[in-house]
Amino acid sequence: MLRSTEDGTRYELLTPTALPKAGGFLWNQKMMVQITCRGYATAQFMQPEPSKYAHAPNLEAKTFIQPEQGYYAHHPGRFVYVKDEETGQVFSAPYEPVQTALDKFVFSVGKSDISWTVEHLGIRVEMSVTLPKHDVVELWSVKVANLTTRQRKIGIYPYFPFGYMSWMNQEAEWREDLSGVVASSITPYQKAADYFKNKLLKDKSYFLCETPPVSWEAMQEAFEGEGGLHAPSAIAQWELSRGDARYETPVAAVQYREELKANEQREYRFLFGPAFDDAEIRAVRSKYLSKEGFARTAREYAEYVAEGRGCLRIETPDKDVDNFVNNWLPRQCYYHGDVNRLTTDPQTRNYLQDNMGMSYIKPDVTRKALLTAISQQEKDGAMPDGILLAEGAELKYINQIPHTDHCIWLPITLEAYLSETNDYGLLQEQVRGKHGDSYTVFERFNRAMDWLLSARDERGLSYIAQGDWCDPLNMVGYKGKGVSGWQTVATGYALKLWAHVCEHEGKPDLAAQYRAGAKIVNDAANTHLWDGSWFARGITDDNVIFGVKTDSEGRIWLNPQTWSILSGAAGPEQIARMLPEVDAQMSTPHGVVMFAPPYSGMREDVGRVTQKYPGSAENGSVYNHASAFYVHSLYSIGEADRAYEALRKMIPGPSKEDYVQRGQLPVYIPNYYRGAHQRFPRTAGRSSQMFNTGTVSWVYRCFIEGLCGLRGDSDALVVQPQLPSSWDGIKVRREFRGATFVVEVRRSAETKEVTVTHEGRVLPGRRVTNIRPGVTYELSVSVPKS
Amino acid sequence: MLRSTEDGTRYELLTPTALPKAGGFLWNQKMMVQITCRGYATAQFMQPEPSKYAHAPNLEAKTFIQPEQGYYAHHPGRFVYVKDEETGQVFSAPYEPVQTALDKFVFSVGKSDISWTVEHLGIRVEMSVTLPKHDVVELWSVKVANLTTRQRKIGIYPYFPFGYMSWMNQEAEWREDLSGVVASSITPYQKAADYFKNKLLKDKSYFLCETPPVSWEAMQEAFEGEGGLHAPSAIAQWELSRGDARYETPVAAVQYREELKANEQREYRFLFGPAFDDAEIRAVRSKYLSKEGFARTAREYAEYVAEGRGCLRIETPDKDVDNFVNNWLPRQCYYHGDVNRLTTDPQTRNYLQDNMGMSYIKPDVTRKALLTAISQQEKDGAMPDGILLAEGAELKYINQIPHTDHCIWLPITLEAYLSETNDYGLLQEQVRGKHGDSYTVFERFNRAMDWLLSARDERGLSYIAQGDWCDPLNMVGYKGKGVSGWQTVATGYALKLWAHVCEHEGKPDLAAQYRAGAKIVNDAANTHLWDGSWFARGITDDNVIFGVKTDSEGRIWLNPQTWSILSGAAGPEQIARMLPEVDAQMSTPHGVVMFAPPYSGMREDVGRVTQKYPGSAENGSVYNHASAFYVHSLYSIGEADRAYEALRKMIPGPSKEDYVQRGQLPVYIPNYYRGAHQRFPRTAGRSSQMFNTGTVSWVYRCFIEGLCGLRGDSDALVVQPQLPSSWDGIKVRREFRGATFVVEVRRSAETKEVTVTHEGRVLPGRRVTNIRPGVTYELSVSVPKS
Repeated sequence: MLRSTEDGTRYELLTPTALPKAGGFLWNQKMMVQITCRGYATAQFMQPEPSKYAHAPNLEAKTFIQPEQGYYAHHPGRFVYVKDEETGQVFSAPYEPVQTALDKFVFSVGKSDISWTVEHLGIRVEMSVTLPKHDVVELWSVKVANLTTRQRKIGIYPYFPFGYMSWMNQEAEWREDLSGVVASSITPYQKAADYFKNKLLKDKSYFLCETPPVSWEAMQEAFEGEGGLHAPSAIAQWELSRGDARYETPVAAVQYREELKANEQREYRFLFGPAFDDAEIRAVRSKYLSKEGFARTAREYAEYVAEGRGCLRIETPDKDVDNFVNNWLPRQCYYHGDVNRLTTDPQTRNYLQDNMGMSYIKPDVTRKALLTAISQQEKDGAMPDGILLAEGAELKYINQIPHTDHCIWLPITLEAYLSETNDYGLLQEQVRGKHGDSYTVFERFNRAMDWLLSARDERGLSYIAQGDWCDPLNMVGYKGKGVSGWQTVATGYALKLWAHVCEHEGKPDLAAQYRAGAKIVNDAANTHLWDGSWFARGITDDNVIFGVKTDSEGRIWLNPQTWSILSGAAGPEQIARMLPEVDAQMSTPHGVVMFAPPYSGMREDVGRVTQKYPGSAENGSVYNHASAFYVHSLYSIGEADRAYEALRKMIPGPSKEDYVQRGQLPVYIPNYYRGAHQRFPRTAGRSSQMFNTGTVSWVYRCFIEGLCGLRGDSDALVVQPQLPSSWDGIKVRREFRGATFVVEVRRSAETKEVTVTHEGRVLPGRRVTNIRPGVTYELSVSVPKS
Repeated sequence: MLRSTEDGTRYELLTPTALPKAGGFLWNQKMMVQITCRGYATAQFMQPEPSKYAHAPNLEAKTFIQPEQGYYAHHPGRFVYVKDEETGQVFSAPYEPVQTALDKFVFSVGKSDISWTVEHLGIRVEMSVTLPKHDVVELWSVKVANLTTRQRKIGIYPYFPFGYMSWMNQEAEWREDLSGVVASSITPYQKAADYFKNKLLKDKSYFLCETPPVSWEAMQEAFEGEGGLHAPSAIAQWELSRGDARYETPVAAVQYREELKANEQREYRFLFGPAFDDAEIRAVRSKYLSKEGFARTAREYAEYVAEGRGCLRIETPDKDVDNFVNNWLPRQCYYHGDVNRLTTDPQTRNYLQDNMGMSYIKPDVTRKALLTAISQQEKDGAMPDGILLAEGAELKYINQIPHTDHCIWLPITLEAYLSETNDYGLLQEQVRGKHGDSYTVFERFNRAMDWLLSARDERGLSYIAQGDWCDPLNMVGYKGKGVSGWQTVATGYALKLWAHVCEHEGKPDLAAQYRAGAKIVNDAANTHLWDGSWFARGITDDNVIFGVKTDSEGRIWLNPQTWSILSGAAGPEQIARMLPEVDAQMSTPHGVVMFAPPYSGMREDVGRVTQKYPGSAENGSVYNHASAFYVHSLYSIGEADRAYEALRKMIPGPSKEDYVQRGQLPVYIPNYYRGAHQRFPRTAGRSSQMFNTGTVSWVYRCFIEGLCGLRGDSDALVVQPQLPSSWDGIKVRREFRGATFVVEVRRSAETKEVTVTHEGRVLPGRRVTNIRPGVTYELSVSVPKS
């Protein structure tokens, strides 16, 4: 049903029905396309705001990606109908819209392409798609082969719906000069000012054919006729009617009619994408639509994706984990860090964390992102809700609602970046801000930390305003008084990290000042938020503490425990009380939930999170971002088994039951798996199918610095693996500051503590110093039996 | 294929495929449902903003109704699958989603119900729906009969999809206590303030069964399985799986399994609608879900619709016109006037014109609307872009864009109202405004007229700002200088009408002043806008005149000609030049277009109208609202044949070809038929399928005051029929000021001018004076041969 290639670079699904929403995604620097195994697709590109070139059949709301996105017959997709001309039988590849039971089905997701092999009626259809690195265009190859020993007459009908493009203006027609269907539209608007904004939008969509087809149809309604999508009337005819769409819903459907000898095969190539005008379509055509163009593009795109291969290769007892960590996890991190989720105004916390992950892939990008973010600091030291990346970009959606946590992510991202690069020089960069002010990065970080210290109430607890890291906790403090338990200890952690940097920078006074700040904050948390066995989530505007024993819903939250460990607010005795509570109340077969039990209805003093569907999205789900923080905190205190258990559950698989429950391929970590597993066991564990998530930077970091224990400090690589107790050893290849470390970790009954040996010499402090770029270091690491 | 009942109160379509989008609409005071012959439905209700209780399968944009709305397999609808349990054959009523060729199909649209009769496999399914007058609930009756002489085993599966209700929270389950599927959701939001706005929304949807079903399914995906909508897997099973939807897309599907003897029939009743909570569902159930409840509701609803029967019954040589004018036209006017298009902020011009139509149906409503509108007058005498009808309502969409024409509609609406009622007392009402100011209606109208006079440039022409009556003419004057030719002469007309009222009110000075104003305005139009054979449409910000001979697109516009006739700007010689140009350039087989030729692309100094699809919406379409103005102006100058030709073309039918081309039933006038008939003959004439239109008040007025020539003045009914020259006579029954007029109009070779006889006496001035309520007047009218 599901298999991985030996090298882990492809996942193959062998039936379209078991994981109906399972898919893969491709992206480049201007676009993203998510394609399911059954052929449905969601594609967006930047111009500069996210736009579509294939649409739903009705007027679709413009919004962020939907959790657990549903599909339906007319959902946008890429399909090929195949007709046996002798019998009139019809099926479709890859599966939709006809939904025939196929003789063979392989959905194959690679790192730089997605493909299918489908067999039915003695005919094989192979479809595959890739992207170029820069341009917004899908490159589709379709191969059709006669698998029988007799000559066959076959009709082949690629069907690429454009959907409802615009109520204002839409049409489509066959363009002989371009050999393709070109759909034109005008993005609807009412305000005169929007005309000028929209003027340069790519309002055309095209489907170009390398091989001229026999016939075509450009109108959806005419293509379907009374047969419907499962048996389009147009296909029952000898030829398509060469119709156009004039304000009707446009489609690209073309016909090839072939006589294939025994085992003969035909290959077709198509381009699908948006354009501003005919000249752009012509240029795309001549650049890509050829055998050579496809081959060159596939190579270049594979090279592009390979740039995101990351700094870690592992061999562990768990092959699925190896595949994921060596291939898919850095790819997902790279996607986040290279294109910032294809938005022009990423939330500041997302922007910083996504770029934290880039420290392990392309640290120059992280450096630039830190400079970009800090240049948009407010006059008072606060950070804005989103970072604007394009001219004319605006803060949209959730970024219009005030959250107070954005400064926290500055020292956190910086810590990962400095550990990886030792680039303390960054701190001395002078940064001119958006208000015309000018400070060094170091000064700006001080100002951000001062702002965090200032945004606290008389008890010393941090205000939450209309949300902290958890957006839908929007009513705890909307009246201006409520405080966040998480934000309080997270402030403590940020100050602690920053104090460490101040120390390094030769500013002991500042270091002491921020350490003192951290202590005050941690003390305040202990005074007001410690509930005997765990930390509360916050205190509302009306002075009601929540996330405490007396709550029947939302009783215990993961983040306050995690971050009190990181900040130092939780002492060893407290941790010893907290962790069993997390185990007992929050650990599930599908991961550690964000809080428990889920809310069953609105708590007006808590917020929107209590109205979300129980177990889904944030309401008591296994919210992987929070789980990843938790794992990071567990590694920080040597809780290797607990850490790995939670870490492993974030990766889809490995059992068949698990894939089916989660409903996705193990090519990415989704932002959540459904929780509420006691109340709704049928749906618990199900994937959100959303691959945009701050989770992945942390998971990658946990593997690198936690499990493998290969973390930099200012002059060395520190080696401190934390294997789960059931493992006897792992092999690791780690790139670090230009050098390569080949590390073999073995458990040994003789070892009392971790011992690192290099060229026969035990390294003091388990530190590799004087690292020389270009050199490969082979390290042997002994870890004690647990 | 299409037939009308003898009395014209029902239209019946005999195949679902010839007019696939054809449908009917029902409304009550809180909701509207538009249903196509194939079963697709679009329903909205007010709470207070328009909301849905059945949704598209994806996240749908919230917007106004779409022109030429497309349908697709998973579009919301109301369906019943029927399965022959012995053969396993399945079809669906009324037609979708299975799309089987049926043995019999009748789609029957009545004034207060919509129904189908469908026969296949020896089984008859009758479906019908009606509404109550006040509550938001659909009452569905389904009858299933065995038409054969043997016993049959039949499965019956009503399928009412709820669609994608919310990304935040949605679920559905069978509720034994309510005997129905109840879907729950939470309207998504992000801003805390919206929580309080949304708090009382009816976020539940229900499907209630009078007869308990054998089984049910509440999850869309589970219902369809791999069979798809055309052959749902669930129906292939013995029973539905009694599943729930937990954040999955909800559906209501239930199963009845019957053994029907020869000719036996079963009847089922269902309720479908939105609710706030269980208590409301229980209340709706007990009020409606019974044989008696259905019968009572059908009666009450028919009575409600009958309140909108209007003041005119005609018998002409054209039976289709009789049906339309006697039944459907007043019904459409009543819909507009009684519920104001189900919006909380109708555009001021729409609100006034829709209520102009109510003068002929329920003039008290018109009176109240005039008071409501004028109470929202701005301090400077201008009228706002929309009239707010509900507490908390806001100006939305197009109403946020400044238009300058709203004052014009005040005296126009008033004229129709006074002609009908003689209620000059209205003018003395004291109206406290939204700014706390207080004036009489008369004073407020003066102030509005003064504002119109003030909103003109140094040439005396009226500014257009970002649009006049024609919204998408938004860039003619967005820089503040451009002027509207239409608005200039429309101002002249408004002033002329108002001067007449001033005269009546014993204010000859004011009358003279406004007449002088009208003259100045008309003179300015003649000086700056007369292009030799017609009036220009306007002059842009950059002083470019447009809608003139030298333009290759948008060369001649209908409105400036129409309103120059009404205002008096056009003298007889000018009219004699204009009308042949309208005939030659703008008259088409489908009606008179709004302007010609359509634009093929953007003119940045004209506006959005030039980007709309040529022939559709406003871009050179047969925009019926403008056509109706034109007809009104033609009757005002005795152009009876030209008037009737344009009037007749607004009514769908009568020929088969015409229905197919237009694609709708003759139960309403749509806002446009596509134009561009030379460039796009395939699509020209096609109906927008949008029944919200300012057209209908004018068309009704044209029939009453123009064709039938039965118009009131301050103390009489003036009789001046204007029959098309091909007609020999008509019979009319007209209700007027409480009396009934039975009028027989005959063409006579002996008559030189219109002669009106009552009880043997020729009436001087063709005026019936001293009208006594309750009395029936029989009038004989002779009109000369033409």
